[in-house]
Amino acid sequence: MRVIGIDPGLRRTGWGVVDVAGARLTHVANGVCASEGPDLAQRLRSLYVQLTEVIARHAPDQAAVEHTFVNKDAAGTLKLGQARAIALLAPAMAGVPVAEYAPNAVKKTVVGVGHAQKAQVEHMVRLQLPRADIAGPDAADALAIALCHAHHARFGGRLAQALAAAR
Amino acid sequence: MRVIGIDPGLRRTGWGVVDVAGARLTHVANGVCASEGPDLAQRLRSLYVQLTEVIARHAPDQAAVEHTFVNKDAAGTLKLGQARAIALLAPAMAGVPVAEYAPNAVKKTVVGVGHAQKAQVEHMVRLQLPRADIAGPDAADALAIALCHAHHARFGGRLAQALAAAR
Repeated sequence: MRVIGIDPGLRRTGWGVVDVAGARLTHVANGVCASEGPDLAQRLRSLYVQLTEVIARHAPDQAAVEHTFVNKDAAGTLKLGQARAIALLAPAMAGVPVAEYAPNAVKKTVVGVGHAQKAQVEHMVRLQLPRADIAGPDAADALAIALCHAHHARFGGRLAQALAAAR
Repeated sequence: MRVIGIDPGLRRTGWGVVDVAGARLTHVANGVCASEGPDLAQRLRSLYVQLTEVIARHAPDQAAVEHTFVNKDAAGTLKLGQARAIALLAPAMAGVPVAEYAPNAVKKTVVGVGHAQKAQVEHMVRLQLPRADIAGPDAADALAIALCHAHHARFGGRLAQALAAAR
C-alpha cells in the first residue's frame, strides 16, 4: 500500500509518500508545493495543479490530510481552510480515498505523546525513514501524517483479522 | 461580457450568470450546487465537478466570489474557507479571471447601503433582473455578486474611457 501524507498551507503545502508492506515502511518521495500567482484564485490553482501532478507521478493508494482547525484568527483559519480544500480535492479527483487526522493523533501515533514538539516529530520521522532526504519542516510534517495513516491502516487491518478469527 | 457570481457554501453553493452590454443587464441562468458524498473530500469533489460543469455550460468571461471571512466559530470559518477555495478554483482552472468582493461591497453596490437586509438584496436583484426565475436565497446572493461585479466593471470601463479622453 502506498500512502501520501499532505500538510496543507496556502503558501507551502508539504507532501510525503511512503510504501507500507506489513511492518516495513519505505520512503518513496517528499517535497513542498509553493503556491504562485498574483491573486488567491491563481495561487489555489497553482497548488492544485502541482499536487495533482505529484499524485499522478507517485500513484498513491490512499491519502491522509491533517485536520487542523485551531488558529489564531479568523483570516488565518479561512486561509488554512482554503489550502485544506485543495489538499482534499486533489486526491479525491484522482479517485484516491482521503483520511483525516487531528494534529494530536499524528503526534501521538508517531512520537507517542499528543503534545510533542515539532522537532521531536521530525526526529521520529527521520528514525522511521532513515533513507529520506527531507525537503524541510512542511515535508517532514507530511511524512508524519503518512506514517500516522500507515500505522492506523496496519492496526486497522490487524484488528479486522483478529475480529474475523474470533468469529 | 458574461459574468458568473458565486456564493460559496460547503452544503450549498449558489451561482448566477448575467450578461452585461453597456447599461443593459440580462439574466442568463442561476442555480445551486448541493454537495454530496460520505466525507469532506467527496463533498468538495462534488462541488468542484458541478461548478466546473456550470462554467463549461455558460462560458463566463469573468467570475466574482464573495469574500466572507467573518463567522461565529473557527470550525464554521474553516468550512467556509474550504467551500470558497472550490468557488475560486473552478473558474481559475477554466481560465476565467476571478474578482473578490466583501459582502458589504456587494450590498452597497446592489442596494445602496452596506448593511442591507438579505430580503432587500433579493428584492433589488429581482428588480434588476425581472425575467430571472431565482432558485432560492443562495442563487439570489450569487446573482447579487454578479451584478456587483457588472456595475464595478462598467464603472471601471467608464473611468478608463474618461481617463483616456482626458489625456
